[in-house]
Amino acid sequence: MDAAEFRRRGREMVDYVADYLENIEQRPVYPDLEPGYLRSLIPSEAPLEPESYEDVMKDVERVIMPGITHWHSPYFFAYFPAASSYPAMLADMLCGAIGCIGFSWGTASEATLISLLAARCKAIRRVQATNPEISEAEVLSKLVAYTSEQAHSSVERAALIGGVMMRKVPTDKTYAVGGHMLKQMVEEDKAAGFIPFYFCATLGTTPSCAFDHTTELGPICNDENMWMHIDAAYAGSAFICPEFRPLLNGIEFADSFNFNPHKWLLVNFDCSAMWVKKRTDIIGAFKMEPLYLKHENQESGLVTDYRHWQIPLGRRFRSLKLWFVFRMYGLKGLQAHIRKQVALAKEFESLVRADKRFEICAEVIMGLVCFRLKGSNELNQNLLKKITKSQEIHLVPCQLSGRFVLRFAICARTTESRHIQQAWRHITQLTFELLQEPSH
Amino acid sequence: MDAAEFRRRGREMVDYVADYLENIEQRPVYPDLEPGYLRSLIPSEAPLEPESYEDVMKDVERVIMPGITHWHSPYFFAYFPAASSYPAMLADMLCGAIGCIGFSWGTASEATLISLLAARCKAIRRVQATNPEISEAEVLSKLVAYTSEQAHSSVERAALIGGVMMRKVPTDKTYAVGGHMLKQMVEEDKAAGFIPFYFCATLGTTPSCAFDHTTELGPICNDENMWMHIDAAYAGSAFICPEFRPLLNGIEFADSFNFNPHKWLLVNFDCSAMWVKKRTDIIGAFKMEPLYLKHENQESGLVTDYRHWQIPLGRRFRSLKLWFVFRMYGLKGLQAHIRKQVALAKEFESLVRADKRFEICAEVIMGLVCFRLKGSNELNQNLLKKITKSQEIHLVPCQLSGRFVLRFAICARTTESRHIQQAWRHITQLTFELLQEPSH
Repeated sequence: MDAAEFRRRGREMVDYVADYLENIEQRPVYPDLEPGYLRSLIPSEAPLEPESYEDVMKDVERVIMPGITHWHSPYFFAYFPAASSYPAMLADMLCGAIGCIGFSWGTASEATLISLLAARCKAIRRVQATNPEISEAEVLSKLVAYTSEQAHSSVERAALIGGVMMRKVPTDKTYAVGGHMLKQMVEEDKAAGFIPFYFCATLGTTPSCAFDHTTELGPICNDENMWMHIDAAYAGSAFICPEFRPLLNGIEFADSFNFNPHKWLLVNFDCSAMWVKKRTDIIGAFKMEPLYLKHENQESGLVTDYRHWQIPLGRRFRSLKLWFVFRMYGLKGLQAHIRKQVALAKEFESLVRADKRFEICAEVIMGLVCFRLKGSNELNQNLLKKITKSQEIHLVPCQLSGRFVLRFAICARTTESRHIQQAWRHITQLTFELLQEPSH
Repeated sequence: MDAAEFRRRGREMVDYVADYLENIEQRPVYPDLEPGYLRSLIPSEAPLEPESYEDVMKDVERVIMPGITHWHSPYFFAYFPAASSYPAMLADMLCGAIGCIGFSWGTASEATLISLLAARCKAIRRVQATNPEISEAEVLSKLVAYTSEQAHSSVERAALIGGVMMRKVPTDKTYAVGGHMLKQMVEEDKAAGFIPFYFCATLGTTPSCAFDHTTELGPICNDENMWMHIDAAYAGSAFICPEFRPLLNGIEFADSFNFNPHKWLLVNFDCSAMWVKKRTDIIGAFKMEPLYLKHENQESGLVTDYRHWQIPLGRRFRSLKLWFVFRMYGLKGLQAHIRKQVALAKEFESLVRADKRFEICAEVIMGLVCFRLKGSNELNQNLLKKITKSQEIHLVPCQLSGRFVLRFAICARTTESRHIQQAWRHITQLTFELLQEPSH
């Protein structure tokens, strides 16, 4: 394909993309296919001769689309949002063309790991500074990290990778960690000869969007020489709105902070933003200087070599997407997006509260509503099965205090009040059918 | 920006991209700017009101382009190729539109880390199975990993992250690791009470594209219960050509293998492909199962949950790019690309060999030529400084047996014989000027 054909095919693709997104709600949000369906539809080997572009595009509809979960359907309410916007897509086209290889991480999971590894390195150095005879392996075997029992699985995984213990801190009635709970565990572990070195606080947990009490937790971490990382992967985007800023109080105690613009700030996946209070803490844990990566400005201080801040060496030119989106929406436009989605969540919450068969399971602070049918977990599992089977809307469950709960997250940029109303009509219809069944 | 405007702007962007790539060689391949130049050209805050798309695009040329190193200029010969092709770009447009979040790694660095962590987990379990009394921390303190002194910095970094010792194995005259060198170090370490558990072989090293002798190394690793990972990040793409397949002999001994289609297989960054002999070895080291990520097919065996194979939870829909490129080029087209670039390297090699002032520093096997002026490192450093300053071509150095060597890598898809000839004329001209200088 030469530039001339790319000009033609590119125009076609732009129209295909626009058509896809304009008509996305006509597609079943969730695929009705068995995993592995693809195997029989595609050859087992790459073609020897080039094929025509038309054939490839035909197969996009025939082969690919039937298996897609449409994350940008206004009827997608699962997980958390995956950002998308036209300016970001245009930026990605340019990013692909420039195709330069930057030297930063991709996701919140990596940010958590990076912060834990930096904290581990710092703790080992601190302990060895006061007891030169103790080996690195011995310190490692005593280190303890902490996070909420409600924290994302990637936090536990970071400890697994880092080879350190991770203790889960129990949460209060709001599913958030308070200072006294952490303090108590730290004291116990110190008494048992362990070395507390890291706490990952969550602002906006995945199950219920709970906010750990960082104003209580921060001073404890600082007093105990524990690194405090704040994972605000989803909720972080909301802090562009002054009314949500109080939830950020306590950040002054944090050593690192991360949020994902690719979740809620209209920047296509992947784009994760991390701040570190003392960059030398991170660089110290990773710096490598092979000659083929040396450059003139290395020592000048003019350059921040992000390759020392991350696991991969390379990264895509992600900042271009942020830049397009910030400029094309403006702060007001981005604030309007956040506020609209929070309002839609409140609208759904009021629909649930008005129906006595249901209960709200956690305070609705942002764009997530946790709800369930009053009754057994089995009843709610069956309701979710019906919802998934019907393919009209898509949502996933979570567990709160041992109860099976449905998570209704406002995701697509294009979700409007009518979609919320329709989703609720659909849920109540399925509930009616469910409660008719003899088993209930 | 609505769909209607996206259709218009998208067409414009397609033309901008085509124009950029068609005229890329008119741009200085390397920027003539001080790092930080951008700060004065952009506001310190995001705009309050949306701006016009025209203004953004104007600034792409005014603000962004002057700072870009044009990785796809036919005069770019640095590092290794960063793949790019029109079909891959079209696929990326579609990928951005679908915007689904897959749950696999990005780069070879991550693949190396994943394999090392899996090997660490396997080794600890094996040792503890025979000596139940030994603690995980104690095993960890005895584990030793090995790799070539010529291996990529990311291998050493993986050991740093994994908290295990990494020993550098010396290389032979071809800058490759042979069996006896590894065997000797392993025996020494075992005698000293350490536990060898991992070896990362390189097929196509970064400095000189050397190939470790995996047919000798593989059996040693298998006998010693050491995990053998093969990093073929760059050279791996060449194995689609039968004539290069012999370099892959010994792969049957490997536990894991990785190469980067985003380097040499016309798939835009990022796209890295990893194979594992026993998937349970990887999954065992990472598996996490929060309820919000559970799904029906989890236990059915129909689904391969790649999120258990990697550090990030999410990934972009990268396979789409591979699929477009495989189909639009066909195996023949991809083989032709590899063979053409190898031929261009041979052409450059013969130009260097014909000039008695220069020497070739390593066998030219693929698309990389390592060369230098006969004489001091300082002389060659000065030559590279002149090359960089002139901005006409871009290349980076490496160190081979203590000597400062210039790396000439065939990178851009569009590099032709005339670019090689022009690059050599340019290098010899600068050499002539350099040797005129009184200092020499």
